[in-house]
Amino acid sequence: MPNPTAAMLVIGDEILSGRTRDANMHYLAGELTKHGIRLAEVRVVSDDAEAIVGAVQALSASHDTVFTSGGIGPTHDDITAEAIADAFAVPISIRDDARAILQAHYDRQGSELNEARLRMARIPDGASLIENPVSAAPGFTLHNVHVMAGVPTVFQTMVASILPTLTGGAPLLSQTLRIPRGEGDIAGPLGDLAAAHPEVEIGSYPYLKDGVYGANIVVRSTNGAAVDAVIGKLVALFPEAQ
Amino acid sequence: MPNPTAAMLVIGDEILSGRTRDANMHYLAGELTKHGIRLAEVRVVSDDAEAIVGAVQALSASHDTVFTSGGIGPTHDDITAEAIADAFAVPISIRDDARAILQAHYDRQGSELNEARLRMARIPDGASLIENPVSAAPGFTLHNVHVMAGVPTVFQTMVASILPTLTGGAPLLSQTLRIPRGEGDIAGPLGDLAAAHPEVEIGSYPYLKDGVYGANIVVRSTNGAAVDAVIGKLVALFPEAQ
Repeated sequence: MPNPTAAMLVIGDEILSGRTRDANMHYLAGELTKHGIRLAEVRVVSDDAEAIVGAVQALSASHDTVFTSGGIGPTHDDITAEAIADAFAVPISIRDDARAILQAHYDRQGSELNEARLRMARIPDGASLIENPVSAAPGFTLHNVHVMAGVPTVFQTMVASILPTLTGGAPLLSQTLRIPRGEGDIAGPLGDLAAAHPEVEIGSYPYLKDGVYGANIVVRSTNGAAVDAVIGKLVALFPEAQ
Repeated sequence: MPNPTAAMLVIGDEILSGRTRDANMHYLAGELTKHGIRLAEVRVVSDDAEAIVGAVQALSASHDTVFTSGGIGPTHDDITAEAIADAFAVPISIRDDARAILQAHYDRQGSELNEARLRMARIPDGASLIENPVSAAPGFTLHNVHVMAGVPTVFQTMVASILPTLTGGAPLLSQTLRIPRGEGDIAGPLGDLAAAHPEVEIGSYPYLKDGVYGANIVVRSTNGAAVDAVIGKLVALFPEAQ
């Protein structure tokens, strides 16, 4: 059975304007790979309701699981929860369990649960909450979409709480060989090897370092013995591999 | 007139598997913003022909300009050029001008222009070449899609050669204020200010540092005086802003 696929939707003008460099995509990609789930697509859209709704509908329909990051805070530009509710045509309102979590958190802090903060208790009907041990305001899961905060520390704890609930496939195993030769030198034999071994994926990732061309060759499969065998053939073909 | 919009398509399994952290998106976002072009959407897809074709067609239809990165090298997993040709239903073949560029480059290096390297001269009909002063193999522009290498040094020189050919809008100006208070404390007045000033975009980007919550408030507009005025009001509202 093929491994389940996931997609990610990053929501935020700050990424698209170049102000902030996204960190969540790289984190999620690594965690999903370890868990045997293939991240098949990522989209980044701005804080725009129509863009979010369209992307959520498309990704939710074409992948087993969708993860979103960003746009669930208390400010005027946080519109993700409303957009997710729109995407699935369900109502959204302040929910008692989410309000209680926020009330307890701000009571402990000695802060007021004001109108702005209360927006973070707005949860689409039918969603389940995702715990946020860092700053209390919960994420939520609606259908196959997990809606999480954009702040990396919070995003990461939310991912950690969701992953064990998902059915992963066999972990994708990989080995890398670094070959200090230009891709053009190795592409012929590499392509033949790839064609002869459809049971593994062979990726070639060129680099240019200190004026020297080379390529990292990554061999991936859920079958560790198959990876070992192809790596052995690569070393025989390219004895200079590291 | 609204600023032109752009989209980016990042092609590469290595990003989606978490092996490599993408650097090109952040670079392009910053360059486009300086040039007055709004990066409206980014998609990351794997080295899969169907995924690339679908994304190129969707992004090309909905944005003024599309930039792609990755998948134009000589190895078996480099399928971007074919996919772009498919996306626009045009033939693709080895082109004399691209072959001449490669021949001259490998002659200088004392390397052979072998069959694998010759794949990098495959250019869709009707495309114009994008110069690659780093490693010779050209990118190309077909319709409104600019197809570039994934290696960051090459990607960046290609962006530098394309940007002056594009019609940018007025540069988007921005100023940032750092407010060392939780977003929930400032969201009310901030929302009122945003509603009163539709001529600027006001974004709030929360952070959590050394246990202290705060937010970076970014005010953006093509009108510098409007940005100044709103920043002045923010400082009056939040005297602790930095």
